[in-house]
Amino acid sequence: MKPPVPSRTLAAELTHAEPGTEVRLQGHVHRRRELATVSFLIIRDRSGLAQVVVRADEIGDDGLPPEETVVDIVGIATANAHAPGGIEVVSPVVTLLTEPAATPPVELWRPALTAGLPTLLDNAPVTWRHPAQRAKWQIASASLQGFRATLDAAGFTEIQTPKLVASATESGANVFPVDYFGRQAFLAQSPQFYKQQLVGVFERVYEVGPVFRAEPHDTVRHLAEYVSLDVEFGFISDHHDVLRMLRTVLTGMTDAIAMQAGEAVELLQLRLPSIPDEIPVIHFSEALTRVGAPADEPDLAPEHERILGDWALREFGSDVLAVEGYPMRKRPFYTHPQPDDTRWSNSFDLIFRGLELVTGGQRLHRYGDYVEALTARGESPAAYEGYLQTFAHGMPPHGGFAIGLERWVGRLIEAPNIREVTLFPRDVHRLTP
Amino acid sequence: MKPPVPSRTLAAELTHAEPGTEVRLQGHVHRRRELATVSFLIIRDRSGLAQVVVRADEIGDDGLPPEETVVDIVGIATANAHAPGGIEVVSPVVTLLTEPAATPPVELWRPALTAGLPTLLDNAPVTWRHPAQRAKWQIASASLQGFRATLDAAGFTEIQTPKLVASATESGANVFPVDYFGRQAFLAQSPQFYKQQLVGVFERVYEVGPVFRAEPHDTVRHLAEYVSLDVEFGFISDHHDVLRMLRTVLTGMTDAIAMQAGEAVELLQLRLPSIPDEIPVIHFSEALTRVGAPADEPDLAPEHERILGDWALREFGSDVLAVEGYPMRKRPFYTHPQPDDTRWSNSFDLIFRGLELVTGGQRLHRYGDYVEALTARGESPAAYEGYLQTFAHGMPPHGGFAIGLERWVGRLIEAPNIREVTLFPRDVHRLTP
Repeated sequence: MKPPVPSRTLAAELTHAEPGTEVRLQGHVHRRRELATVSFLIIRDRSGLAQVVVRADEIGDDGLPPEETVVDIVGIATANAHAPGGIEVVSPVVTLLTEPAATPPVELWRPALTAGLPTLLDNAPVTWRHPAQRAKWQIASASLQGFRATLDAAGFTEIQTPKLVASATESGANVFPVDYFGRQAFLAQSPQFYKQQLVGVFERVYEVGPVFRAEPHDTVRHLAEYVSLDVEFGFISDHHDVLRMLRTVLTGMTDAIAMQAGEAVELLQLRLPSIPDEIPVIHFSEALTRVGAPADEPDLAPEHERILGDWALREFGSDVLAVEGYPMRKRPFYTHPQPDDTRWSNSFDLIFRGLELVTGGQRLHRYGDYVEALTARGESPAAYEGYLQTFAHGMPPHGGFAIGLERWVGRLIEAPNIREVTLFPRDVHRLTP
Repeated sequence: MKPPVPSRTLAAELTHAEPGTEVRLQGHVHRRRELATVSFLIIRDRSGLAQVVVRADEIGDDGLPPEETVVDIVGIATANAHAPGGIEVVSPVVTLLTEPAATPPVELWRPALTAGLPTLLDNAPVTWRHPAQRAKWQIASASLQGFRATLDAAGFTEIQTPKLVASATESGANVFPVDYFGRQAFLAQSPQFYKQQLVGVFERVYEVGPVFRAEPHDTVRHLAEYVSLDVEFGFISDHHDVLRMLRTVLTGMTDAIAMQAGEAVELLQLRLPSIPDEIPVIHFSEALTRVGAPADEPDLAPEHERILGDWALREFGSDVLAVEGYPMRKRPFYTHPQPDDTRWSNSFDLIFRGLELVTGGQRLHRYGDYVEALTARGESPAAYEGYLQTFAHGMPPHGGFAIGLERWVGRLIEAPNIREVTLFPRDVHRLTP
């Protein structure tokens, strides 16, 4: 099936084809429109859509291939102001590269997908073909590129750490047990311990990878498996250095979306986030007052996050707001306390358009502080021996953060449910496709 | 602990410091050398090493900090032809950023690490700090960058697919079972099904992520969890298009190592691979003859791969050799047969310096062919319903490959054991650190 000349032209390149020359398109039949005297095939490939005009006498005995069939088309490029890119293809020779396709579970050619979420998810391998769906993931993919490019430029080293671990990272709850050669292992809830340990090696590290939370609640913002964008780096003064780095990273991600996924931005009518040069910060205790919550409330409720998000947009024109100083008793043992008042912590959550997107902060870095913190929580330092070894052997003051990819994209496109921006979501009810 | 002026100078930047000016270094004490009248502290940071000279009268009551302690040093940059980069720091004010460090399990300052593999692995968070160890991962990290940059430039979309799956991908063997909310799930052995399905969406996709093999054998080339570099793309003629893309990718990875990890290449005295413009190809049946194996042998043994690797280097000056046409009965059901002789397949293994590094090839793309292939193997197409849906709805001819990151780096540096190039290896015996 080696294609003879001409070689393939992508749909987006068709606009540059010389009218009158022979071109070859390859792709899915996105739309078949059969009129009395003339028919149209809209061909979809990775670059976009192209229009092919078929006269009635050019249609063979089998008729025109149905939608989603994969075809090879050789025809003549012709100017037409109404075609995408101003060029369409006429006098086509249509070759099927596969069987005529079965009718898709949803009409992929309609500009808007009206199917409900369960239909979209149950048929994900096919429904992601819809241009509006595909655009969502193109936002995600550009975000990943921007994340890495920003950190590479800042002297970070990419790491890849194990997802099979001997004990729970963050807490005993919400871990998936694995039968590991007859022993019990767990799926990592985060690369937290590893990224910290590797700050001792590379000083600045990041990782993009899956994390696993056996989250029993079925909410619009939780997944059992999601992509975590983890950053950790040494030689900081406190969590404000971490927040500054987070700002640089979010800006780099936003710029990459604008640069590399411009069409997706347009298609989704996406409003790119406004991130000020300095991210506004509010202390947790002040945030409680602002939302009218009792002063001893240990956490912010989703409704509180929404109020604070609105306030940040109104007050600072900012889509992001950092809430610093979360109570130590609600933060993991490795959290660095706020030096002048150790009820509070040198950590923050970043609220993005009313939803918690990032958790970050400064960590403890002295061995003695770890032993003390674990003991105070009634935990045995011996249970963390391997981890603590790193600190006994010298670790710089450090901190970091983790961004949930799906939450980022979800809030960017203001999707009501995080599953809409996840290729193949996993939750308490869903393990397929 | 906000550092006052001067701001930090990285070790590698010290060479540009104006002699006589004040500079600030921050890092681990890599080496402490105490002589009668003068002592030296070698400071290690993410960029390299710097030398600090301490006169006897500059040492406080606590003495000089032991190796691996993290310090902040302010002193005067001074020319010294014998110091790294031609500049050292004198008249230092040394501030400890943590407690004096405990003695490391291995002497990290020695040019060569002489400890055995178990010691290295048991103490990985600390032993990776050794410059020669660190260099190994810098090769890996540069490889990942080169992999992605090459594919981004070729119009590929990065994907992230679930690692929790409802059934085994490749075969029923060697899967890790997971307790998934009371149901049984498995850890994905590869993203094979997902990457194929997403070829229907994005046409060209890649993924970097963990894969899991419950490999019960303790060998120098197997891991229970490793990083798979997966590629899949549509509109190919046959597996030779896949092999050409693989060549482009391997060349991009090699170039990235040369560009971004030059110092690591030098430190490890690494010979970068020689990859010809066209990768030499030998048919499986011919390979059997060449290694003197029986004609009905279904696979190549490690010894055969070594012989073939040597032959390719001798014959073609190539570090890589593709063996195409592996017997269909030993390949997974989605493998495309060799059109002129269906005992053989349109698939290949790539041997890199005598070790299988990559498996790739053309896949079936017609729904009918899948039903037939599964039925012929005594499997029920119904069991693959979700996967097969993609093909019923139209899929282009396609293929792809998967590179094991650790095998790539292992053969690059000619490590006798793959665990040496894995940050935190997992195998039948090892689940920590």
